[in-house]
Amino acid sequence: MKSDLPTATLLVSCPDQKGLVAKIANFIYSNDGNIIHADQHTDFNTGLFLTRVEWLLDDGFVLPRNEIAQEFAQFASTIKANWQLFFSDCKPRMSVWVSKQDHCLLDLLWRTKAGDLPVEVPLIISNHPDLKYIGDQFGIDYHYLPINKENKSHQEAEQLKILRQYQIDLVVLAKYMQVITAKFISEFGQIINIHHSFLPAFVGANAYQKAYERGVKIIGATAHYVTDDLDAGPIIEQDIISISHRDDVKELVYKGKDLERTVLSRAVKLHLQNRILVYNNRTVVFK
Amino acid sequence: MKSDLPTATLLVSCPDQKGLVAKIANFIYSNDGNIIHADQHTDFNTGLFLTRVEWLLDDGFVLPRNEIAQEFAQFASTIKANWQLFFSDCKPRMSVWVSKQDHCLLDLLWRTKAGDLPVEVPLIISNHPDLKYIGDQFGIDYHYLPINKENKSHQEAEQLKILRQYQIDLVVLAKYMQVITAKFISEFGQIINIHHSFLPAFVGANAYQKAYERGVKIIGATAHYVTDDLDAGPIIEQDIISISHRDDVKELVYKGKDLERTVLSRAVKLHLQNRILVYNNRTVVFK
Amino acid sequence: MKSDLPTATLLVSCPDQKGLVAKIANFIYSNDGNIIHADQHTDFNTGLFLTRVEWLLDDGFVLPRNEIAQEFAQFASTIKANWQLFFSDCKPRMSVWVSKQDHCLLDLLWRTKAGDLPVEVPLIISNHPDLKYIGDQFGIDYHYLPINKENKSHQEAEQLKILRQYQIDLVVLAKYMQVITAKFISEFGQIINIHHSFLPAFVGANAYQKAYERGVKIIGATAHYVTDDLDAGPIIEQDIISISHRDDVKELVYKGKDLERTVLSRAVKLHLQNRILVYNNRTVVFK
Amino acid sequence: MKSDLPTATLLVSCPDQKGLVAKIANFIYSNDGNIIHADQHTDFNTGLFLTRVEWLLDDGFVLPRNEIAQEFAQFASTIKANWQLFFSDCKPRMSVWVSKQDHCLLDLLWRTKAGDLPVEVPLIISNHPDLKYIGDQFGIDYHYLPINKENKSHQEAEQLKILRQYQIDLVVLAKYMQVITAKFISEFGQIINIHHSFLPAFVGANAYQKAYERGVKIIGATAHYVTDDLDAGPIIEQDIISISHRDDVKELVYKGKDLERTVLSRAVKLHLQNRILVYNNRTVVFK
Repeated sequence: MKSDLPTATLLVSCPDQKGLVAKIANFIYSNDGNIIHADQHTDFNTGLFLTRVEWLLDDGFVLPRNEIAQEFAQFASTIKANWQLFFSDCKPRMSVWVSKQDHCLLDLLWRTKAGDLPVEVPLIISNHPDLKYIGDQFGIDYHYLPINKENKSHQEAEQLKILRQYQIDLVVLAKYMQVITAKFISEFGQIINIHHSFLPAFVGANAYQKAYERGVKIIGATAHYVTDDLDAGPIIEQDIISISHRDDVKELVYKGKDLERTVLSRAVKLHLQNRILVYNNRTVVFK
Repeated sequence: MKSDLPTATLLVSCPDQKGLVAKIANFIYSNDGNIIHADQHTDFNTGLFLTRVEWLLDDGFVLPRNEIAQEFAQFASTIKANWQLFFSDCKPRMSVWVSKQDHCLLDLLWRTKAGDLPVEVPLIISNHPDLKYIGDQFGIDYHYLPINKENKSHQEAEQLKILRQYQIDLVVLAKYMQVITAKFISEFGQIINIHHSFLPAFVGANAYQKAYERGVKIIGATAHYVTDDLDAGPIIEQDIISISHRDDVKELVYKGKDLERTVLSRAVKLHLQNRILVYNNRTVVFK
Repeated sequence: MKSDLPTATLLVSCPDQKGLVAKIANFIYSNDGNIIHADQHTDFNTGLFLTRVEWLLDDGFVLPRNEIAQEFAQFASTIKANWQLFFSDCKPRMSVWVSKQDHCLLDLLWRTKAGDLPVEVPLIISNHPDLKYIGDQFGIDYHYLPINKENKSHQEAEQLKILRQYQIDLVVLAKYMQVITAKFISEFGQIINIHHSFLPAFVGANAYQKAYERGVKIIGATAHYVTDDLDAGPIIEQDIISISHRDDVKELVYKGKDLERTVLSRAVKLHLQNRILVYNNRTVVFK
Repeated sequence: MKSDLPTATLLVSCPDQKGLVAKIANFIYSNDGNIIHADQHTDFNTGLFLTRVEWLLDDGFVLPRNEIAQEFAQFASTIKANWQLFFSDCKPRMSVWVSKQDHCLLDLLWRTKAGDLPVEVPLIISNHPDLKYIGDQFGIDYHYLPINKENKSHQEAEQLKILRQYQIDLVVLAKYMQVITAKFISEFGQIINIHHSFLPAFVGANAYQKAYERGVKIIGATAHYVTDDLDAGPIIEQDIISISHRDDVKELVYKGKDLERTVLSRAVKLHLQNRILVYNNRTVVFK
């Protein structure tokens, strides 16, 4: 964050036309707001204008917080915009989902504890009991919901119930080794996953084994939003590391763990800073 | 380039105040211009607002080209702005300066020939005759001006004369192994240099030898604008490559050549795309 | 190269057993040779021992050059080894194949001219006439062999004839946009290709278009030996570069060109330095 | 590790001469040992031969463990070698030293707990009490020894006493913000430090502030052995991350934390795997 003062952020996408930068900036300025970050992208293939604007809330901005959305909605309809409004001091609530591996979970919890991720984490969900002690250590509720073919549908309904109960805004799959069904996604769509390869290479399970067998010289990790289409959702962040013939599968897994937790945490941070705009199964990341 | 249509670009810096994004965008919009790139940065330490705005010239923009500067100047004075205006179809004229090494020169000329650098290169200057054949191959005038302690002042005067004669806008020191004097810089200030280290490490000569002696595990290259202060000008671009104990000085030089030419070409391209704003001995690079 | 004196290099692979390092080193030492590089890898999955040993030829080594192979063959049969012997001062002969893009060709020719690649390049083959002028500039024969469905078989026979005539040891596909048939490969197997993606992602044509459509945040390039199986041969070298939503397909192609030429040149250099051992469709790269 | 069986590793350096690879391999082979990793480097500048050899202990190797050193010593004297012998199943004992920042400490403890670092960590030393709770969580003794100008000499004596009491083999300065005196180093020399810059840039304190002021486009971290000469000891590992004008000092510190912990943990792992040979204030890292 460039400033520790509370800010409001708008993410806006709409058909491109002249005057959009001016009009949106005028909306802020006419209410005496001070923009501290404005970035814009035009996708010429789709004719879309996409922008992120962030301004100070307590520096003379005259619109009361609870009226901003309503006011902007009126303007937004004139430019046929999709838009989202965020306040930096309203921390979203995140649930981390894990199976047996702890590295991504611990990384996220550490960063949250260190104040580096603007989020609250009241809930861990897992299909295994193994990492409950981490929840205990950090004082976070840990719900153990074992999954098998027979109970999957029932357990997903349970998961949804718990998410609502905890008022969760964002689910992060931090090495949760279960496929989320389309039905679940249709009811709770805000999900970030970490995949253990540089997608679209090595979709699905056993990515490190496959990477070893193919004899690649780099391995990667990909953080993406989850959609119905397995490992094919909008990519947020990717990174890679060089490997050599000396690295067997076990070593790939070890090196991959560092990639996975770094890439996932970066993606989650970008999301929490409201820097990501999704359209057409792709992301604009306003860095 | 996002579009092949001619564009105008403004680089603006001024004291921060409310409404700047709106006012500058309004300047374009009120003349019926279509912004295709707008990016903005606020430096809270210095209280400076810095922005880059690019818009289409031939898409209904009503101000004639030759009146834009005058019009904008009037507005700019009201916000105490420093500003520069560029047209994408007015190619600047660049002179490449070399000594004996050819890799950076060749890289720049190739990219120019391939249409990847929007520039004209009518002039090579060197303190050695060795690379004249490259000038011949590309049809570029090659001025050989040997430099020693005694004649340096005289030769720099000569260089300045030639730059003016060729109407040069930008000098690129592509492994030109002579220090440019403060006097020269005061008369021709637009100079980009490539330094063979990740500055501020290994300032001055023999950077690879020093890197070897220090036993570093990475080597780098830095492209920067030239100022009076040797190797201390505003940094445009840096990159590095990993090395190991197997790399002797000769190998470092070999690997470094690839870095040098890549980093220099990237910096020159950013400059030619008018993406760089310099202030307080640092750069904002609007990517 | 660590030394400018002529060296001999052995690449050896055989079933693992005790004493291999000792026995191979003894072969050199018993003939009074000075090893300057010895590296070894054991693949526990396949039970294979793989090694590279390089020693000085003119520092008291008592075996005459033309007897080394015969002597080593006798020893090699006792350990059931596959092996190759190279002399650093016997430059292999390389043919570069291109279509219309020049960047990889130029990069290879430059490096060769600069003395950075220990190779002779007497022959360029292309299915287009466009780059003949580069052959002319560098004094290299340029054979233009247009290819279509009907004449492919005939032209490949012609290509083979020319390769033999020029006594070519290595073919480098430097953006040669034709698939090489299994028949050709069975007759000339030493072929390196540059693929414009981080394989196994985006196999086949239009990799940048596919990368754009998938919305990846990194693009890559892969140099590999060519086998019957398209884009599935042993990988020698890979590298990547970060991209953003601002990069359209045209920009990806531009950034990719730098990757392609760098990765291809690195792979070719490793091959020419006899650092690569291929087994089971994978490479050991002794760096 | 390539194998989970116990191994012995020799790190050897000596004046270069013919036959060294053979002689050292023969030492293993004559005792019926199976080498699983042998790597060698010749430094032509200093005329030094440096090697790492690792072999299986329980695969027929006939020398009893406690006789290997004695036997090798006899041979080593004939080649004037410095050497060290390690057994993979004898875990060294490591003490982590911290001040107030927890990220490097936590990273090391996690990896140790996950079984990724072959080491025991019985002791944390700090000049602040803040991180004691982490010691408690992991069941590690935490000694709080406040340091000021007056008591430094006394406290260092105390630290030495505690190190001996805990039989510590390796001290890791994981953001320990005190300079270690030459006197201490002369008594306990095995110390790894993490420095928050790509050395030799930004020696000393406030590296991120200095990096910001210089306007660099990359920041780095360096893990090195500690010597009398502040931040000038042999470098083990370095890495960097790209930054932009948007990153203020606070953001640099945040990004730097990830670099610091990754680079430090990699260096510590290499050390614990006995892959590092130090000579002439530089390292050979046998990867």
